[in-house]
Amino acid sequence: MRNFKITLEYDGTDFKGWQVQPGGQRSVQGEIEKVLQKIFTKKIRIIGSGRTDQGVHAYGQVANFKVQTEFGTDKIQRALNATLPEDVAVLDVEEVPLDFHSQYSAKSKIYRYTILNRRARCAQLRQFCLHIPYRLNVPAMRREAKALIGRKDFRSFVANDPSREQKDTVRTIKRVDIKKTGDRIIIDLEADGFLYKMVRGIIGTLIEIGRGQLPQRSIKRILLKKDRKSAAYSAKPHGLCLLSVKY
Amino acid sequence: MRNFKITLEYDGTDFKGWQVQPGGQRSVQGEIEKVLQKIFTKKIRIIGSGRTDQGVHAYGQVANFKVQTEFGTDKIQRALNATLPEDVAVLDVEEVPLDFHSQYSAKSKIYRYTILNRRARCAQLRQFCLHIPYRLNVPAMRREAKALIGRKDFRSFVANDPSREQKDTVRTIKRVDIKKTGDRIIIDLEADGFLYKMVRGIIGTLIEIGRGQLPQRSIKRILLKKDRKSAAYSAKPHGLCLLSVKY
Repeated sequence: MRNFKITLEYDGTDFKGWQVQPGGQRSVQGEIEKVLQKIFTKKIRIIGSGRTDQGVHAYGQVANFKVQTEFGTDKIQRALNATLPEDVAVLDVEEVPLDFHSQYSAKSKIYRYTILNRRARCAQLRQFCLHIPYRLNVPAMRREAKALIGRKDFRSFVANDPSREQKDTVRTIKRVDIKKTGDRIIIDLEADGFLYKMVRGIIGTLIEIGRGQLPQRSIKRILLKKDRKSAAYSAKPHGLCLLSVKY
Repeated sequence: MRNFKITLEYDGTDFKGWQVQPGGQRSVQGEIEKVLQKIFTKKIRIIGSGRTDQGVHAYGQVANFKVQTEFGTDKIQRALNATLPEDVAVLDVEEVPLDFHSQYSAKSKIYRYTILNRRARCAQLRQFCLHIPYRLNVPAMRREAKALIGRKDFRSFVANDPSREQKDTVRTIKRVDIKKTGDRIIIDLEADGFLYKMVRGIIGTLIEIGRGQLPQRSIKRILLKKDRKSAAYSAKPHGLCLLSVKY
């Protein structure tokens, strides 16, 4: 048996998220498993580093699968890219030790949220950034974001999901970088793990801070409340992209 | 009567190009004219700086239209962006003198062609760049591209189009910039005007030069032949974007 780690880019627009859906709706995992079955002529289970929600993109999602095969990594990559639909691409295939697990072995993940902050909406990247026509106060967002860093209970930013157990809502956010380049605001978050809709809850709150709708030290107060209702709405999924997973 | 200049961004993927199509197929011009008719409750003709082909994008296409109205530029922009389909956005509306003509007043146009030069294809930007898996020799492309600059007869790069008169195939290319950023090669061309499929013919030829398929001084030789068959194929439209028009 051999274990392969694959790095994936996808356009999440037309997927019901990463995870295989019961009704057979289109999922990234489902599409890849279909192709792996064609390549290796048997059913193969693929493990993702984590689920991405419907509409969320990935530039460096990582997954692994185990199979008995003579094929080399190059051949597997070529076969996957030749057969997968055009909204998923395999950027890399690597052979890894059998105990590598794309979810449990992950040390940290980096998510990127892209905001287009200008009056006119955008046509070309409309599925990859959130358009915000009013001016955001980026320095205020940066100042408040500092309160997110460290090992904290992020319960206030986590959406309730009956299909997941989320007793432990403590995570460590390693960094939050907020860059403004032209009319784009790019927010990168790195953490040892993210809870269900946690990034989108944080981004929605940062946007409200940027709009001046929340007082200073809001994030600190929200974290202490440990109640989802204390934070702002979840920002829309299409601005979000899983940039990379570190091991 | 007032004259309005509008700057447009569009995702060309789902359009049959800029120009209104006889069969009512989806065109950028057609979509804008439909919306202008709604806003001003009369038929309004819009003039583009030039046609873009099916699949070609624009980040700064310019068009103008004349109308008797009390509306301000802000109101027109908001009304257009609220009503146009999401793959067209109006970046700017400006009132201009009555003799401004987006095509005849143009001094130069800048087109950008984007190549993704890496082994794996790409998922997110698949409709905005041409994927070339083999390595391109960028310095060779740059060297050869110099022969394009200046006032020349570009007949060898122009496709035959029975619907257009193209007796005069002399144009002035002001600059060709070829940048490599990571795995992307970005080619910007500025000229006082471009002929039918001229950019795509030039790009196809530069790609063949980058692949080492054409000898040195090929562009010079191709220009002298004044025959479309002497140049390489036309590069696919989806990598091409009309970046801006100068007046």
